Parts: sequence; structure tokens; C-alpha cells
Amino acid sequence: MTGLRDNRDPGAALMARLDELAAFTDEPGRLTRLFLSPSHKRAVAQVIAWMRAAGMTATLDDVGNVRGRYEGATPGAPALLLGSHIDTVRDAGRYDGTLGVMLAIAVVAELDRRGERLPFAVDVLAFGDEEGVRFPTTLSGSRAMTGAFDPATLACADGEGVTLEAALRGFGCDPAGIRALAYPPGAALAYVEAHIEQGPVLQARGAALGVVTAINGATRFRVVVEGVAGHAGTVPMAIRSDALAGAAEMILAVEARARGEEDLVATVGQVAVEPGAVNVIPGAARFTIDMRAPDDAQRRAAVADVEAACRAIAERRGLALAMERAHDAPAVACDPRLVAMLAKSVAREGGAPIRLPSGAGHDAMAMARLCPSAMLFVRCRDGISHNPAEAITAEDAGAAFAALLDFVRRFDPSALTR
Amino acid sequence: MTGLRDNRDPGAALMARLDELAAFTDEPGRLTRLFLSPSHKRAVAQVIAWMRAAGMTATLDDVGNVRGRYEGATPGAPALLLGSHIDTVRDAGRYDGTLGVMLAIAVVAELDRRGERLPFAVDVLAFGDEEGVRFPTTLSGSRAMTGAFDPATLACADGEGVTLEAALRGFGCDPAGIRALAYPPGAALAYVEAHIEQGPVLQARGAALGVVTAINGATRFRVVVEGVAGHAGTVPMAIRSDALAGAAEMILAVEARARGEEDLVATVGQVAVEPGAVNVIPGAARFTIDMRAPDDAQRRAAVADVEAACRAIAERRGLALAMERAHDAPAVACDPRLVAMLAKSVAREGGAPIRLPSGAGHDAMAMARLCPSAMLFVRCRDGISHNPAEAITAEDAGAAFAALLDFVRRFDPSALTR
Repeated sequence: MTGLRDNRDPGAALMARLDELAAFTDEPGRLTRLFLSPSHKRAVAQVIAWMRAAGMTATLDDVGNVRGRYEGATPGAPALLLGSHIDTVRDAGRYDGTLGVMLAIAVVAELDRRGERLPFAVDVLAFGDEEGVRFPTTLSGSRAMTGAFDPATLACADGEGVTLEAALRGFGCDPAGIRALAYPPGAALAYVEAHIEQGPVLQARGAALGVVTAINGATRFRVVVEGVAGHAGTVPMAIRSDALAGAAEMILAVEARARGEEDLVATVGQVAVEPGAVNVIPGAARFTIDMRAPDDAQRRAAVADVEAACRAIAERRGLALAMERAHDAPAVACDPRLVAMLAKSVAREGGAPIRLPSGAGHDAMAMARLCPSAMLFVRCRDGISHNPAEAITAEDAGAAFAALLDFVRRFDPSALTR
Repeated sequence: MTGLRDNRDPGAALMARLDELAAFTDEPGRLTRLFLSPSHKRAVAQVIAWMRAAGMTATLDDVGNVRGRYEGATPGAPALLLGSHIDTVRDAGRYDGTLGVMLAIAVVAELDRRGERLPFAVDVLAFGDEEGVRFPTTLSGSRAMTGAFDPATLACADGEGVTLEAALRGFGCDPAGIRALAYPPGAALAYVEAHIEQGPVLQARGAALGVVTAINGATRFRVVVEGVAGHAGTVPMAIRSDALAGAAEMILAVEARARGEEDLVATVGQVAVEPGAVNVIPGAARFTIDMRAPDDAQRRAAVADVEAACRAIAERRGLALAMERAHDAPAVACDPRLVAMLAKSVAREGGAPIRLPSGAGHDAMAMARLCPSAMLFVRCRDGISHNPAEAITAEDAGAAFAALLDFVRRFDPSALTR
């Protein structure tokens, strides 16, 4: 086992820890650690052990999070919260989520090694349910920290019919205790989450680290275009109602609208046609639209434009159109003062002060309800994530360690005004 | 059983016959009569019985066709061939193929009722393998008539591993006899096939009947577009290589090229993306292209333009492109003199002289190798085919009967010059 108390190469030590954690999987040969699974249970035990070795008290809470606490100079003081999640997608990479947790433990271990106590406590949170793969829920661990856990989700079942409630009990948690998990007012000073970028911006800009300005809001549609199926050889072009040709025009309209504005992204990730034969004109086409932006007004305007464009295309082509809004989540702004503090720490450790929005969702979205929140992004290779090819360098891990340590040591809660 | 000898309403009598034939199916509740299946065997027996009742000699040949013969004034004279196929797709309509066979029998029955013998024989052919559903072959019955049957196809197996050879033997056919089935030179004067249009042109033009000028040539591609998959939220639009957006542009280019020219049709009937998740930029898109035209030069020019357009789109977007030509069949022109004769018969029976290409393939494509060939199209409702909703009216069936009877009675082989 690697020792984080050896501070000669914190980046390499972190990488070794992340490799160790990646061994906790439910599927031999690939990393799959779903919420409340046997491998999650084993990972929890390991994380608790690492937290304790870093000078923290640590326990599993009733919603499946690990909570470690490093007291400040005065026991029971309000806390700076650090963390991320330790559940994964299926066939995952080893950095998504886990990096933020291992980094937080490493920072606390370094404080402990130096014997430093701060004017505030540091709580390290290892959330259990960020990926939302096993149950039709997500962020249940971080939501519980803020009092926003929805008890109705306890009745949700996984693909094998096991309810969230039963799975929590099997994990050693008492669902009745979740209500009491929320930080009381004033107890949480701020939340900072380090995470791989899961995108290519930092790599493109040649920077190891970035500070997140906002977590993008997102709107998703399920679109159904209906035309008239027909024989590919016998129906003249002039009298066709080809659902796929209409959908193709809509797909390009989605792309064109997003291309026109910085920070706005739009994606058609799924498409299917019916009947789907080489010699049959498609009678129906179904596709999804995913639109994200750091600014809600920007996203709403783009969504309205895309809806209007699709309607116009359908009308011109004589196609029926149904657009079902499957998801709609507002953007979550990071706290500007906290962002500025993080950016200063990045700069002090030699990094460029890159600021960028997060296109992916994170526990920080839930935590922002509780206290000022911000995120530190770490460059990942080619922006690849949710994939075994997910990669970061030990150098970048070391840079993140240095920046986060600097941030924690200099953190001044009085500089944050609500 | 309906009597075709009752000539008071030949259209209604034909409709009743087609209903009777539709009862021969391998799947209860829907019409599925695959080549050399038990229901095909029962249908063969029924068709032989109907042919004999119409004054013909009739037998099953060694490739699974029924061949009926109505001798002319001089026994053993060269024959005018009439026919189509009696196999079906799965969950088929009751007119595709069968109409042409039942119509031919009805015409001969009428000659027989009148006691008319012509200066030539009339052979009625009920082919067994036009739809190509069971085996990876098609037109094997009509090809055998022309000497173009490929013995290598005997080794082809159906989905259950039964070879064509074994299936033929089980049907009572001797594959060794197929070679001898070809009409000797001079024995076949012409081939005329009546068939539902399987398209909407006649309905749109308000005509019961049409005369086919050519069976369209066809080119098919399997296209693979490769870009770079990525997170839908984290990859800025400017650095994406979205395979589906590129494919959408290509799909529209295919449509635009075909729209510009009469009689040219092009269809993208299948599309699939990988990985195919709502929140992942497509890394690959696969689609098919099917292009058809009555003129080969016209089709080749359009194919070249579509290939160039797809290449240009891929290049501009930084996508990899592979276009595999999966199928390439030349157009088959109908014999102009035979077309003119048929058109005159249609006009004499009160129809408009509509001429149109056939977008679908037919046994006439194979038969054109043997002798002058032509086709009579019968209007079908909304162009629907290969579907239980396939429909024609008794009035249109009656019109087809009258036109074909007129054609046969007036057919003058000397007017056909090779």
C-alpha cells in the first residue's frame, strides 16, 4: 500500500492510490462500481481506512457516503467541504470522481503530516451516487448533505427489482437516518470539488488545471418525426414524406444553432428509423437532442430556436413532429469569490488562470444549494471519460494537489459573502 | 371455389381467386409463403389444378416453378409467356406476384371458354423465387427459363441451414434437371408480366393501368462515417468531429441529387450511430444508400455525384468515410414494340396510355435475357406493398384482365423484330 505521508512525489502517490481504488470492481477485467454494490462496500471500507490514516475520523453515513472529518484548531468548528464521488459507470475509467476524493484525502494527509490545524474543520465527502447508473436517481448522496434528498426515491428499484431502500439497508445504512444528515445552517463554509475535466478544453489550451465558473444547465428532447414509409424504388421523390430526410435537416439545424455561440453545445446522440430497411423510405425517425449552456437565458433562447427550426422543417416537408422535453435543469453558477480564491491558488502554483464552464453534471450542483461551491478541473487525455481509456498524468495530479493544498491552507471563510 | 369460366365479372372472379390463394400460408393469421415451403407446395398443387381447369397442361418443374401450357392452333408452336411469382415476403399482401399469375390463368381460361386457339401457344409461368426471402438468391425460377440459373446457388442455405438443393429435393424437384428447363432458341416469343405497381404513380395520375418502360437499375452503398465520440456536455462545438452531423449532411445531399431529376430516386433507409447515447457525441454513423433509375448513364452520373458530395462533406468536417458498393444492377429496358402493343391494348380497353419505369425488381428482369419482355402495372392503393394493407380494386383487376386478354388475342410475333 502506498503511503500518502510520503510527500516527495504527491502526484505519483495519488496515481498509485487511484490504481488501488480501481481494483474495487464488480466486474472482473473492467471497472464497474455501482452505487451500493459489493465493490462499493469494499471501497467504502478502504476509503475509511485511508481517511483515518490521514488523521480524520471517518464513517459511512445513512445514504451511503463516506464522511471524513479533520478537526480544525477548535473542535466542532464549521467545515470546508472537499470531495467527489466513488461510484462509477460500467466499464469506467479510474479518475472520474475518485480523483477528487483521493486528492482531498491527500491534502488532509499533508496537513496532518505537517501537524497543521486550520481555523476551520475540513470534511472530506466520498459520495456514493453520482453516476445514476444503478437506480433512476442521481446525486442522492450530495442532496442528503443539503436536506434535498427526496424520500420518494427510496421506492425506486434497480434493474433487478431491488429498491433503493432495500439496497441501503443491505449496505448497512438506515434510510430513516437520511433526514438528519443535512449540514445544519452555518456548519458548511464552502464546497470544493476537484474532478477530471471530461472534456478537451484544458488539453487544447495547454493547461493542467482549470477553475469552473458554472455547471451548465441542460435541456433534453426526445423527438419523433413521422412521414410515410414507402418502397425505395417506386415512390417518386416529389411525393415522398421521408421522415429521415426531415430528421437529417433538423440534426443540422441543432448543430448550426449551437455553433453560433460560445459555451453553448448541442448534440444529437441517438437516432433510429422505422422500418429501417435498405429499400424502404423511412416512415418514422426518432432522435434525441441534448443542449447545454452555462447561462440559462442563453440555453432557453437556443432551445426555442431549435424547436422553431424543427417545426418549420416538419411543416415544409409535410411531416408530423413531436418534441418531448425529457429533461430540463438550470445552470448552477459557482461562487465567484470561491472561484477567484481557487484561481489564485492555481496561479500561485504556476498554472494559467483558465476558467471554463462544466458541461457535465457534478455533486457540486447539489452542494451549491448548501454553501458557496466551486470546482477545480484537471486536464484529462483527449477529453475521454466514462471509458477505460480515461487518463491523467501524475504531473497534473501533482499540480492539482499543490493548488488544492494552497487553497485549503489559505481559505478564509470571512472572504465569502453570501 | 370460384369459377373463372363465369365471365360476367372477371374482376370480381379474380379477386376471389386471389383471396383463395392467400389462404396458403406458413403462418396462421398472416400471409407468408416462402420459396419451397409447405404452403408453397400446397399453392403449387392449387395453381396446377386451376391451370388444368383453364384448359392447360400443367406441371411443377425442377426449379419449383409451375408451368402451364395452352397449345396454339398447331401443337408445339413457339409460345407467348405470361406469368409472375407465387412466393411472398413475410406478412405479405395478397397481390404482389400472385395477381400476374391469376390474371394469366384467367385470360387463358377465357380463351378456352371461347374455344379460341391462337397461332402460338400461351405458357403461364408461376415462379417460386422472386422475393428472395428464404435463401440468399432471387429470380432463380425465371433465370432457369433463360439458362442463367447459377448452379453454385444450390449450396446456399436458409436461416436454418437447409440448402437450396435439399429444399428443392424435398419439394419433389430434381436439381440436375434445372439445366434442361431453359426455353430453346425460338421457343419463347415474348414475356409479359402483369404486377401491382407497388408505387403511387398510377393512383396519383388516376389510371388503373400502366405500361412499364424499363426496370430501374439500382446501386446500393453501405456507408460508414467515423468521427470522434465525446461527452455531449464537455466538447465545444468548434472541436467536434460529429459522425452523425456529417451523415445528416450526406443524407440531405443524396436526397437533393435525386430530387433534381425525373425518374431518379435515392433513399437512405437505414441509419445507426455509435455509441448511441443521448449524452455522447456520435463517434460513428452507418447508413445505406439505394439509388435507382431507368437509365444506366443517368444512375451512374448520380452515383458519382453522391460519392463526390459525401467525400467533400467528410473532408470538410474531418471525418473518415467508407462507401462500400453493396449492389449494382443495370436497368433492364422493356421491348419498345411489346410496350407499344401493350399500350394499345390498354387504350382499346379505355385506359390512358401511362408509361412508367418500374422501381422494383421483377422476374421480367431475368426473362428479358430470353425474349422481348414487358410489364403491365396495375394501380394499388397508396402504393403500399409488402404489407397486409396491399390493395387493388376489382374494377382495376377487371381492366387488367380486359387489356391482357386483348393483348394476347391480338399478339403478332412477327411485329417483334429482334
